This record gives sequence, structure tokens and C-alpha cells, in this order.
Amino acid sequence: MPTSREIHLVKRPSGAPAAADFALVEREVADAADGQVLVQNLLMSVDPAMRPRLTAGQALDEAMMGGALGRVVQSKTDAFAVGDLVNNRLGFREYFTSDGKGLNKLSPDPDLPLTVHMHALGGTGFTAYGGLLHIGQLKDGEQVFVSTAGGAVGSVAAQIAKIKGCYVVGSTGSDDKAAWLRDTVGLDAVINYKKQPIREALEGATPKGIDVYFDNVGGDHLEAALRRMNTLGRIPVCGFISGYNSGHSNVSNLSNIIYSRVMLRGFVAPDFMHLYVDFQREMAGWLKDGRVKYLETVRDGIAAAPAALIGLMAGENAGKMLVRLAE
Amino acid sequence: MPTSREIHLVKRPSGAPAAADFALVEREVADAADGQVLVQNLLMSVDPAMRPRLTAGQALDEAMMGGALGRVVQSKTDAFAVGDLVNNRLGFREYFTSDGKGLNKLSPDPDLPLTVHMHALGGTGFTAYGGLLHIGQLKDGEQVFVSTAGGAVGSVAAQIAKIKGCYVVGSTGSDDKAAWLRDTVGLDAVINYKKQPIREALEGATPKGIDVYFDNVGGDHLEAALRRMNTLGRIPVCGFISGYNSGHSNVSNLSNIIYSRVMLRGFVAPDFMHLYVDFQREMAGWLKDGRVKYLETVRDGIAAAPAALIGLMAGENAGKMLVRLAE
Repeated sequence: MPTSREIHLVKRPSGAPAAADFALVEREVADAADGQVLVQNLLMSVDPAMRPRLTAGQALDEAMMGGALGRVVQSKTDAFAVGDLVNNRLGFREYFTSDGKGLNKLSPDPDLPLTVHMHALGGTGFTAYGGLLHIGQLKDGEQVFVSTAGGAVGSVAAQIAKIKGCYVVGSTGSDDKAAWLRDTVGLDAVINYKKQPIREALEGATPKGIDVYFDNVGGDHLEAALRRMNTLGRIPVCGFISGYNSGHSNVSNLSNIIYSRVMLRGFVAPDFMHLYVDFQREMAGWLKDGRVKYLETVRDGIAAAPAALIGLMAGENAGKMLVRLAE
Repeated sequence: MPTSREIHLVKRPSGAPAAADFALVEREVADAADGQVLVQNLLMSVDPAMRPRLTAGQALDEAMMGGALGRVVQSKTDAFAVGDLVNNRLGFREYFTSDGKGLNKLSPDPDLPLTVHMHALGGTGFTAYGGLLHIGQLKDGEQVFVSTAGGAVGSVAAQIAKIKGCYVVGSTGSDDKAAWLRDTVGLDAVINYKKQPIREALEGATPKGIDVYFDNVGGDHLEAALRRMNTLGRIPVCGFISGYNSGHSNVSNLSNIIYSRVMLRGFVAPDFMHLYVDFQREMAGWLKDGRVKYLETVRDGIAAAPAALIGLMAGENAGKMLVRLAE
């Protein structure tokens, strides 16, 4: 019967989440009973999409939900063996027992670090892949804009667009990430939106307009992009991080979608699960030959999880924000 | 050499267009030269989509552009005979000479009045048909909301949805149009948005949510609809009449398209020209068997055209707003 530490939401944030909204709680976890496994989480994912759930969806005074990668440490079912790696949605806790529902076995690629299965080669990368190619219907050589291009999803989306021969502009909020996008990733133009007004900067950076805008931000980024969309352009809407803390995401020039016949479409990865096998094969290849590069920001220990989430919302992460719970 | 009267835009409207923004001008029109025809316009169309062109696009001190149906009265080309009916974009004038470019010959259906070729059986109806079926991907039996359902496009869209077995809610701005939609057209629910707050009314009228919102309005209608969209809902965006006079169309809850994975898509009829033959055949049948009903508001004489446009923006029309220039 292991002792597990877990993170509870104890108060709904008003605006940006704060340390006092969370608590670290110790719990005894039952050993696996018949038909069950006991899982130790090794890595947990910290995502912008968690923020809306703090306002509605995430229960108070319970361990928070979130993506994690764990290892089976006890098994009383034939479905899993001790040592199996399993993806689960029960992050923000060190241990849990499970009847196996919602656990997906992972066979990690031996030539890649385990962490990439939590981002570029996992759900994060798949969101970028399907969002750009399936929802955004990207064609080779098009004009592309990606917001939060230094983030986990954005950086993968921007690089897939480069692989497809596109002209790619990325926006990011720090000079370090801008330099990485320009010098290491090789984007055609990079905008630090904290230093340049996004509207003017985007106008200068997109002389041929925009065919696909991969939107993680909403708000002023979306407004700026709507001014630059080419006829029959597409906007896969992955997230509206600009509005997550305020609950609002104002856009005043949505009428541009009429004149330019633009499509906006919100999506989640389950919308294109039929592409998952293609994605895994292609992305593993791109990661191994260095065509897709990635950054990780890894914090250590469950106690660091609230600060990681707060920092993510403030843009402190470079690439994927992870918390390592155990080796 | 006939004398033609024409309507000029002499001042760009600030806000709602006013009589002083227009002038009635008399011009001598040359007789048809070799290779030319002289056309007398019989009917001209007055559309919400003209409003944005008054702010940008329509030249000042020139005859205004707009859809019209005319008759060839002189011909010096084999391409057209005297008496041919021709669709053209040179409305807002009584006569014009042309080398034939931009003229489309019309073969009117002998069992239907000529005017329906200007709306339900013309571009207006086609916009509704393709917007709903092609852009909106309407499936039989879905939950549908149509704004300005008493207008030319909206009334056709609402009736096509009824023909497809859908539950259809329409919004309109007058009791007369509401009664027509309820009693004659047979919509499942009708909202007079000038008497009821659209948000609450739409919530009450759509117990099963909305799968397709055919949007002619933007603004508060779109906000209200975004709150009610079902998962994987579609919003074909035909127009944003609420924003045409102000130049703005604010929407504060666009983030709903992420959680519900909704698609918004602006469109114009040329996006689905491949459906035109199907449309003409189906719509002629629906009009003849009375399954599609229509209203027309017909003003007489070119001098009435500015008032017709001003009245259209104020919602004075029931159904299609036309001006009859000649018999």
C-alpha cells in the first residue's frame, strides 16, 4: 500500500491561476485487487487546455485530471504485466489503482527518449499533425502562420509546415524562443509579439498573405491573422490561450471570413484518429533524422506541478512542459 | 439613343445609408455599335451585401453596380437577339450598351413569374441552397437555426431545411414576418428578436441544440448560436448584416468553437457552381408544388432604388427586395 502525493484544485482561479488555488495532499493508495493494476506515474503533462477545466469541469478537492505516462508496478489482471508502460489521464498523482479502463499500453521507440512520447510523438504532436493536415487541409508550398510557435503544439505544427515546403511565420513571446525558431528550426519569419505589435509585424512578415493560420491563441493574434487571410484560407483552431484566464476571446473583424471565404474550425485530436498510425510512422522518422526538433521544460517532483501550470500560463515553458514524478 | 436614369453613390454613408448619399442622374446612352447590344433593365435586386461596397468598392459619382435582369432592345452581334433576357451586374440604371461580357442569357420558366428568377430561383436561392447543403453539410433531420428567416436568402434556407426533415428555428424582426414563418412556412419555432432577447429565446427554442446555424447576421445572433451549437456543428456564414453599418461584428465567445469542435465558413455562391443545375431543377420543382414559398417587396421605378436600399437595411422588406424598372 504505497503513499501517493497528489495535487488538488482547492479554489477556482479568478484570472491567472495562483499557488493558493492548489494543494499537495498525501493519500494511501490500495494495492491492486483482482482484475486491477497499480500504476506509478513517471511523467505528467502540463497543458494550456487544462486552464478552462479549472474554471469548470475539474472537481474541487480531488486529484486533478491530466495526461500522464506511468509504469505498472502491481498486476492482478492478464491484460497488463508489471513493467508495462501505460498512458493515462490520471496525472497529478504519483500512484493509482485501475481496472485498466482508460489505460493505453505504450511501446516506446528504443531510439528516442521516453519523454518525446509525451509530446512530439504523442498527443501533442498528433494534435499539430492532424490539425494542420486534416483540419487545415494544408497544401505543399502554402503560406502558413503558427501562433505560440515556441510551444509544444505550435513548434511541431510549424515544422510540419516547413517539411511540406511552406513559407512559415511563427509568433512567440520571448527572444530565446524566437532565436530557436529562427536559427535552429529555420522558420521564414519570427515575431516576438511582446516586442512588436502583432498586427503590423504580421503584415510585414506575410507579403503573400496567409493560407493556413494554426491558431493556439485567439484574441489579437486571430484578429491580425483575419486581416491577412487569403481567399479560401483555413484556420484550424487548436486553442485560445489568450482568453483562458479571462474567459473572453474578443474578435472584432470576424466579417473578414465572408469576404475571403475563410473557414475556422475548432478541433480535438479524436476528430482524426484514423491518421494516428501514419502520424506515428512519419513523426518517428522526422524525429530520428532531425527534421523535427523539440524543446522540453521538465520540472521535478509532484510538488512542482502547480508552479509548472502557473508558469505555463505565463509562457515560462520552452516547448513541452512536463513534470517528472519518478525515473 | 435612349435617355437612361441611373443611381450614383455621391457620398460614403457613415452608419446607416441616407437619401443624401445617393443621386438620380440622367444620361444619354449610345445606340449599340458593331458587336454590341443595348439592354433595358426590367428588374433590379437590392441586397444586404451591397452595404459593405458603399464603404469600399463602389466608385463615387458613377452608376452603382448590382444584380439586374434586362431585355436586349438592340443587337449588333450574333450572340444575342432582340428580346433576349439577360442577367447582368449593371443594375441601378435603366439602359446600358454592352459587348456581351458579363451578360448571361436567361430562359425563364414559363410556369413561374419572372421575378422568382431574381430570388428563389436565382442567385439568392442558390446562395441558400449551396450554403446549407454544401458549406453547411446539412443532414436530414438535424437541428437548424436560420437568422433573418423572413429575408430573401434566409426564407429559402429555412424552407430547404424543412424539406430535408429538419427541426428549424428562424429569427426575424417583425410580427408580420414571424406570423408568415410560423403559419405559412411552418417553421418549428420563430423568434422576433426585437421583442425577445435573442439569447434566452434561442435557448428556449432549441432544446436539442443546433447542428447547423445559417448565419446572415453575426453579432448577438452568432453569440447566442455559439452557446447552443452541438458537437461538430457547422455555421455557414452568408453575411453579417448586424455589422454592415458599423463595420464591426464583435463576438466574445468564439472559444466555444473549440470545445464543441464547430466549423464556421464564409462563402459566396461561386464556391459551389457545380451544384447550379441540380439547384435549378430542384428549386423549380419546389416552387411549382408550393413546398418553397416566397415573399417579394417590389418598388417601382429607378428613383425608388435608394429608398429601397435604405429600407432593406432597416428591415422594411418582406422577402426579396426588388425594384421594377420597366415591364
